[in-house]
Amino acid sequence: MTTPGGLAEVRALVFDVFGTVVDWRSSVAAEVRSLGWPVDPPAFADAWRAGYPSAMQEVREGRLPWTHLDGLHRRILDALLAERGLTPPEAEVAELNRVWHRLAPWPDSVVGLRRLKARFPVITLSNGNVSLLLDMARHAGLPWDAVFSAELFGHYKPDPEVYLGAARLLDLEPQQLLMVAAHPSDLRAAAACGLKTAYVPRPMERGPGGRMASWTPSEFDLVADDFVALAGALGA
Amino acid sequence: MTTPGGLAEVRALVFDVFGTVVDWRSSVAAEVRSLGWPVDPPAFADAWRAGYPSAMQEVREGRLPWTHLDGLHRRILDALLAERGLTPPEAEVAELNRVWHRLAPWPDSVVGLRRLKARFPVITLSNGNVSLLLDMARHAGLPWDAVFSAELFGHYKPDPEVYLGAARLLDLEPQQLLMVAAHPSDLRAAAACGLKTAYVPRPMERGPGGRMASWTPSEFDLVADDFVALAGALGA
Repeated sequence: MTTPGGLAEVRALVFDVFGTVVDWRSSVAAEVRSLGWPVDPPAFADAWRAGYPSAMQEVREGRLPWTHLDGLHRRILDALLAERGLTPPEAEVAELNRVWHRLAPWPDSVVGLRRLKARFPVITLSNGNVSLLLDMARHAGLPWDAVFSAELFGHYKPDPEVYLGAARLLDLEPQQLLMVAAHPSDLRAAAACGLKTAYVPRPMERGPGGRMASWTPSEFDLVADDFVALAGALGA
Repeated sequence: MTTPGGLAEVRALVFDVFGTVVDWRSSVAAEVRSLGWPVDPPAFADAWRAGYPSAMQEVREGRLPWTHLDGLHRRILDALLAERGLTPPEAEVAELNRVWHRLAPWPDSVVGLRRLKARFPVITLSNGNVSLLLDMARHAGLPWDAVFSAELFGHYKPDPEVYLGAARLLDLEPQQLLMVAAHPSDLRAAAACGLKTAYVPRPMERGPGGRMASWTPSEFDLVADDFVALAGALGA
């Protein structure tokens, strides 16, 4: 099988992780439910995730010194608990904060990554911190060749330092990297840095009927329904 | 099997790579031999490697801006060729410089790492640059969970920033890391940062009759003949 036009020079695949590789919402909701707190578990998961862009923005604007994602998750979680007047034991909160280290993959993620890895290096390019991504990989069986994180660059996506930093560490030109993500905004930022882009929609990321960002097929180099289809499209 | 005393709190293994995991001398000599240059291949490999400490020292003292190991290898190689009055084609020199990306593992490395990985995260902590370590892993089948490199920290071992940087990225205390190396000096620097240490002597690293650095058994937390023995000693 030949690679799609424009992708022949791709030498490595870099992956967004939350939502693209793993189903954060179901995993977080399940652990929240198991704690028995008086909250709606999926709504709590959504609220936790919803705090993440503004927390990163505080770092980006220098209002908060560099804080890795575990730290941001904890700040958001503490605020959610305070808003709801909940005061669970510290050990329970600390343990829940690490739920992001043990998210479950989408059903196609592991089998698709294994196929892709046979042909290309497969590497994370995530805002998750290194220890989070490493724990998640061992928990979920994700066969990464390397773990690249915002933490290595001191910048969160979509800052260009992350995409260009990945190219630098791989000793490749930006157009030799294919960014794989379920989020058009991530892909647009990658493309602005010269990376090639593959969009893998994950319609269940925000649950049944959840909103998806709008996009047009022509704006990405490749669109695939899941990682197995992506492997097929790339001849892997 | 119980873990040796003092190692019960170890949560991750970090590995020196050149000499410890891979046999650089045989691999480099074989490629030099295949080029047919008028040099003694093992002696040329030794001379190339011998230039490496002083090249790193230039970086350490700021006489040379940060240069990754591929860059240092090329500087040393160019000097060796000039000393010998050799002027091979640029493409040949550039290709040989990447021989360090395709070094062969010691016979026990892959099987031992696979056993160790079942119990602990196994992670490089090498002066090799990220792309070098990544290529080598795919070439040699080294099942790393993550690739940590001097390049991530802007410092070469034995600078403490490398050992402490690994602990920081893993969100672990230094004593929760076990540094595995064939070089006492690397282990002593790791121990000075609080890491636990495992010495795996590689008597063939510098060829038959090659000199090994002196050491005493009591200075390391563990000594193992190879990675399979290391796995056994750690109950992996």
